[in-house]
Amino acid sequence: MSERRMLVVGAHSADFVWRAAGAIARHTSRGGEALVVALSYGERGESGELWKQPGQTEENVKRIRHEEASKAASVVGARFEPFDLGDYPLRAGPEAVERLAELMRDFAPHVVLTHPEHDPFNPDHPAAHAAVAQARLLTSGAGVASGFRTAPPSEFLVFEPHQPELCRFTPTVYVDITPVFDRKVEAMAAMAAQQYLQEYYRQRADQRGNHARKVTGDSGIRQAEAFQRLLPNVVEAL
Amino acid sequence: MSERRMLVVGAHSADFVWRAAGAIARHTSRGGEALVVALSYGERGESGELWKQPGQTEENVKRIRHEEASKAASVVGARFEPFDLGDYPLRAGPEAVERLAELMRDFAPHVVLTHPEHDPFNPDHPAAHAAVAQARLLTSGAGVASGFRTAPPSEFLVFEPHQPELCRFTPTVYVDITPVFDRKVEAMAAMAAQQYLQEYYRQRADQRGNHARKVTGDSGIRQAEAFQRLLPNVVEAL
Amino acid sequence: MSERRMLVVGAHSADFVWRAAGAIARHTSRGGEALVVALSYGERGESGELWKQPGQTEENVKRIRHEEASKAASVVGARFEPFDLGDYPLRAGPEAVERLAELMRDFAPHVVLTHPEHDPFNPDHPAAHAAVAQARLLTSGAGVASGFRTAPPSEFLVFEPHQPELCRFTPTVYVDITPVFDRKVEAMAAMAAQQYLQEYYRQRADQRGNHARKVTGDSGIRQAEAFQRLLPNVVEAL
Amino acid sequence: MSERRMLVVGAHSADFVWRAAGAIARHTSRGGEALVVALSYGERGESGELWKQPGQTEENVKRIRHEEASKAASVVGARFEPFDLGDYPLRAGPEAVERLAELMRDFAPHVVLTHPEHDPFNPDHPAAHAAVAQARLLTSGAGVASGFRTAPPSEFLVFEPHQPELCRFTPTVYVDITPVFDRKVEAMAAMAAQQYLQEYYRQRADQRGNHARKVTGDSGIRQAEAFQRLLPNVVEAL
Amino acid sequence: MSERRMLVVGAHSADFVWRAAGAIARHTSRGGEALVVALSYGERGESGELWKQPGQTEENVKRIRHEEASKAASVVGARFEPFDLGDYPLRAGPEAVERLAELMRDFAPHVVLTHPEHDPFNPDHPAAHAAVAQARLLTSGAGVASGFRTAPPSEFLVFEPHQPELCRFTPTVYVDITPVFDRKVEAMAAMAAQQYLQEYYRQRADQRGNHARKVTGDSGIRQAEAFQRLLPNVVEAL
Amino acid sequence: MSERRMLVVGAHSADFVWRAAGAIARHTSRGGEALVVALSYGERGESGELWKQPGQTEENVKRIRHEEASKAASVVGARFEPFDLGDYPLRAGPEAVERLAELMRDFAPHVVLTHPEHDPFNPDHPAAHAAVAQARLLTSGAGVASGFRTAPPSEFLVFEPHQPELCRFTPTVYVDITPVFDRKVEAMAAMAAQQYLQEYYRQRADQRGNHARKVTGDSGIRQAEAFQRLLPNVVEAL
Repeated sequence: MSERRMLVVGAHSADFVWRAAGAIARHTSRGGEALVVALSYGERGESGELWKQPGQTEENVKRIRHEEASKAASVVGARFEPFDLGDYPLRAGPEAVERLAELMRDFAPHVVLTHPEHDPFNPDHPAAHAAVAQARLLTSGAGVASGFRTAPPSEFLVFEPHQPELCRFTPTVYVDITPVFDRKVEAMAAMAAQQYLQEYYRQRADQRGNHARKVTGDSGIRQAEAFQRLLPNVVEAL
Repeated sequence: MSERRMLVVGAHSADFVWRAAGAIARHTSRGGEALVVALSYGERGESGELWKQPGQTEENVKRIRHEEASKAASVVGARFEPFDLGDYPLRAGPEAVERLAELMRDFAPHVVLTHPEHDPFNPDHPAAHAAVAQARLLTSGAGVASGFRTAPPSEFLVFEPHQPELCRFTPTVYVDITPVFDRKVEAMAAMAAQQYLQEYYRQRADQRGNHARKVTGDSGIRQAEAFQRLLPNVVEAL
Repeated sequence: MSERRMLVVGAHSADFVWRAAGAIARHTSRGGEALVVALSYGERGESGELWKQPGQTEENVKRIRHEEASKAASVVGARFEPFDLGDYPLRAGPEAVERLAELMRDFAPHVVLTHPEHDPFNPDHPAAHAAVAQARLLTSGAGVASGFRTAPPSEFLVFEPHQPELCRFTPTVYVDITPVFDRKVEAMAAMAAQQYLQEYYRQRADQRGNHARKVTGDSGIRQAEAFQRLLPNVVEAL
Repeated sequence: MSERRMLVVGAHSADFVWRAAGAIARHTSRGGEALVVALSYGERGESGELWKQPGQTEENVKRIRHEEASKAASVVGARFEPFDLGDYPLRAGPEAVERLAELMRDFAPHVVLTHPEHDPFNPDHPAAHAAVAQARLLTSGAGVASGFRTAPPSEFLVFEPHQPELCRFTPTVYVDITPVFDRKVEAMAAMAAQQYLQEYYRQRADQRGNHARKVTGDSGIRQAEAFQRLLPNVVEAL
Repeated sequence: MSERRMLVVGAHSADFVWRAAGAIARHTSRGGEALVVALSYGERGESGELWKQPGQTEENVKRIRHEEASKAASVVGARFEPFDLGDYPLRAGPEAVERLAELMRDFAPHVVLTHPEHDPFNPDHPAAHAAVAQARLLTSGAGVASGFRTAPPSEFLVFEPHQPELCRFTPTVYVDITPVFDRKVEAMAAMAAQQYLQEYYRQRADQRGNHARKVTGDSGIRQAEAFQRLLPNVVEAL
Repeated sequence: MSERRMLVVGAHSADFVWRAAGAIARHTSRGGEALVVALSYGERGESGELWKQPGQTEENVKRIRHEEASKAASVVGARFEPFDLGDYPLRAGPEAVERLAELMRDFAPHVVLTHPEHDPFNPDHPAAHAAVAQARLLTSGAGVASGFRTAPPSEFLVFEPHQPELCRFTPTVYVDITPVFDRKVEAMAAMAAQQYLQEYYRQRADQRGNHARKVTGDSGIRQAEAFQRLLPNVVEAL
């Protein structure tokens, strides 16, 4: 049984579903612990369907988004923690960074996942990246004993953005999510406010599965998720 | 016990020692099989000490280099196979590529290591890279059934060059070679014609060990070797 | 007749003249509408000639710069709107971004032009870029119905900086400004505080014209301006 | 009616179908002329299904591939011309380059499409790129009158490879292929030897359509193809 | 005798020692003037050894770090000026930038050294880079007479970070520090709180010396330091 | 007096004039020695004006180009040595590389100048780069005593191409050519077959002069040439 802890931080409450639900499910199905942090509910910029309802309010949108994300997290075995910082624009200033750092010191994750550094289509994703990267460094204290509470350094990866090449994303890791793909499908189904993305990311998982088959020759892989590791991976052998 | 096969291809007979002897020793000490191919003996461009001896001949230089490399390979548990194509310049044309491809079809390596694509200090390293990359693709047949004999796709990494930044090398994997470092030291000692590099790569292993400690916080790591993976790594979980 | 709306945002009041006056004139001469926003007057860092006058004041410099930029805008058929945020350093914080976003929601531009992301010679150009990029995204709401007022996504290009390679600028579009080059010359002549740049950008237009001729073989092109498109261009056919 | 001529060069006879059939169909449906050159039939490396048949021969594989590609080209209104240079490896030496150059001088294309410069999964795609780029330059004579027969400079774009990020491909143009998507589907159906790719590229067209919608906000776009322009685009206005 | 002035800005009080002590000593030994600014004492994140002492306080850590850095600066002939802005995180906002700019206007350095723009292992180094780059530009006024006090443009270089490739650092200048290496060793010895780095940077100087020998063939070079110049170097002849 | 030797290698006989005549003149006016090698006369691709004359022959074009280049070289104090390998395409195979290497061993240059590695507008420039880079490495023998005749390592720079950004050229050195600019103008005037480039490169020298002024604040600089250094510069002090 794995005892690894995984922290997934998204700018909006649904980000973890499209981009990492498979890797989370794979992680928890092996006994690992997973915590999903949503810096905002995406209530303004990513809840278009909900705003079409007459009399809709921001509070109600947030409530619905909270329920959806909680359910999706539960489906893949993760805990869900919202920061509710607001979106479009997400402003993750020093207080948010410190809150994230404290959470990292408590949770002591082995692996941290978040958005890539660049995204020309979304103002909040790079803001989330910057906050997570900053908090992670404030947690690890340069790898030496420090004048503040620390946690061991974690692996740091970014998940796949919507238009990868334009976000300067190059995959370095494919996670085979074949055995848990039904969990990802179910988690996506919980995000009723963004139904149009479900087919998109279902196809995307197939395509990354194709890529992973090509790399390995392993015909058993049907679906995969792509990640980019930002720091070298330390291994015992190749 | 590992049953993985590792293929290491160097432009000159000593390249594998400085750049990958630790990873090879780690691999074989777990039961893996390792085959080192030297495209040339480096008899012209990397055997300066030997040429200082009066009456030295190319044949004798090659003989000495063969003995040294064979011994070093043996120290880290690998088999040594020289192609003797000549160096400065190394010309690895279609025939050499086909010979490499046939060797790959027979050996069916799980992992292939060679030089990076660029090296502004050495004309033979990029030539070796190009030949290995080409041969590897001719072996794997696009990942589908092909009109020729194939081997399963292999992992493909490049090892650390002498001046990494100028060779556009960015490490993505550190291999912890602490348990086998004495083997690397012994293998380096076998390369009498390039004694001046032994201290250099001993220090380099210490520094990469420092980097790997920084990434992991694992104070047990003392020495490491750096590699760059050219294709995504397919994993079951993060 | 074109009904396209073009928004040009410069850090200082003269930037649009050197870098985009030709493209603006070409746009308006086809019936398009153009709006030039100057985030500052460049009163401190780019008005050296004016400060040589005894007794010069900041207010007077701004007044002169306003007149010059208004005249230049008028020459190329554009409206001029100064934000007067101050320069060296230009600080374009959340309020300035929101003001830009509101302007974009009202004006609903089809194409937005501003400075590149990097400029090692100027502290204000990257600040302008960041503000424009952020405002543009806050305006477009991720391409879906949003919880706030939006405008359709616009094309997004950056104009040529003073030392292109060092600003990581690579041209992807040359606009043939031959038919309106006299307008650009006249607009440049209006910028009395920076006369030394007129010859420079006159030559630059000739050189980009040479480049555009080389790309097309069209000997009728005499002057051009260079731009870099940050997002893919969607076309009906190649 | 368009009178533009488009030249599409693929390493193997099916490449144009997966990567550019939509753009070709869009081009010809407007009256443009299209010529598809296949440097090889892909008889060894990309005809796996055919080699599963007992008693299969290289000649027969080529014959079938010729029929399939001819039919697919016909479906999108293009002429098909095979060079039959052999694949895995494709060797496009000086003679092949000169043959391509002569063809370009005769056909005088307005736009040339081929593979990207890099592809870590395929040895033949970069070889095709190099030959096309070289031939194109030998045709255009540096943009000035030359001591040999020339054709006007053409636009030069590369089409989408199978794993874009790893081929260093970044889209700069999306062609809306919605009106001709049925033609692309029919062309793909003609490639019986690679049926497994039909669903893949059908999905890919949907995803690029999604990307193109995001860039433009135009909900009428359903499918698109992605291209990267290697030289600046010269336009009359933005 | 040189009359050049060198400004070295580090995020923490010891940074200048590891990364530039040799270049400083070389500079001052030729008669040049050197000023070291430490934006913080590194009291929280880089003083682990000191925090192991029972009853340790932040004030005492700062006091010790001040003494160490003053001594090290003195050893290499430089003046030491601490800004004491705090570390982990270092926050170098508008006031700190203005303070740096004023210092630059007074000191009028010919060359400025600081950290690279990126560092995935340290949150403070990029913050220091941004502040220095901004202050330098606010000092030089775009190279023309400005509405504020200026200093002549300075050369701008970044020094070597701990894991160069991952900080996107590529050396463009090696400074031969052989004649002053004993001074660097003595300066490093003064940094008692980070003893573990002394051997690391002693080895690093040897390795960069090896690289500089390779570039020049000058066997007299034993130790060197690596820098990356961010702006072109203007010379009278090659 | 300088005793440095400079080797300039161009693909065509006029390349050295447009791109490096100023740096050569500066070099020789200080007492340095300069040797210009032209791999071809550019008789096919860059002699358009000459081919407009009725009855023109290749031999006559070469003769004229030889005279022009000899005269231009003489104007800037350099010796001219043509290899006459033919152009469009220039094929610089093993024999040409060995001839260059022998020349380098004899001449033992301190600095080598040639074209950049990439040029999407010219097939011969990258071929020249590859040959020079290869020959230079075959000459220097990895910086150690070798089994063949060597010369000391040389500085290696590329000169400015026609469309810098698209050739991935980023200047790292500006040479102030103000004192010898009249010599460059005279050398350019000697290239009668490419008169259209004289004004272009006259303007370019002014612009690079502007850039060099901006970098240094030295108003005495009027004209400059831009170069990119491919290997670190080893210096005694910054």
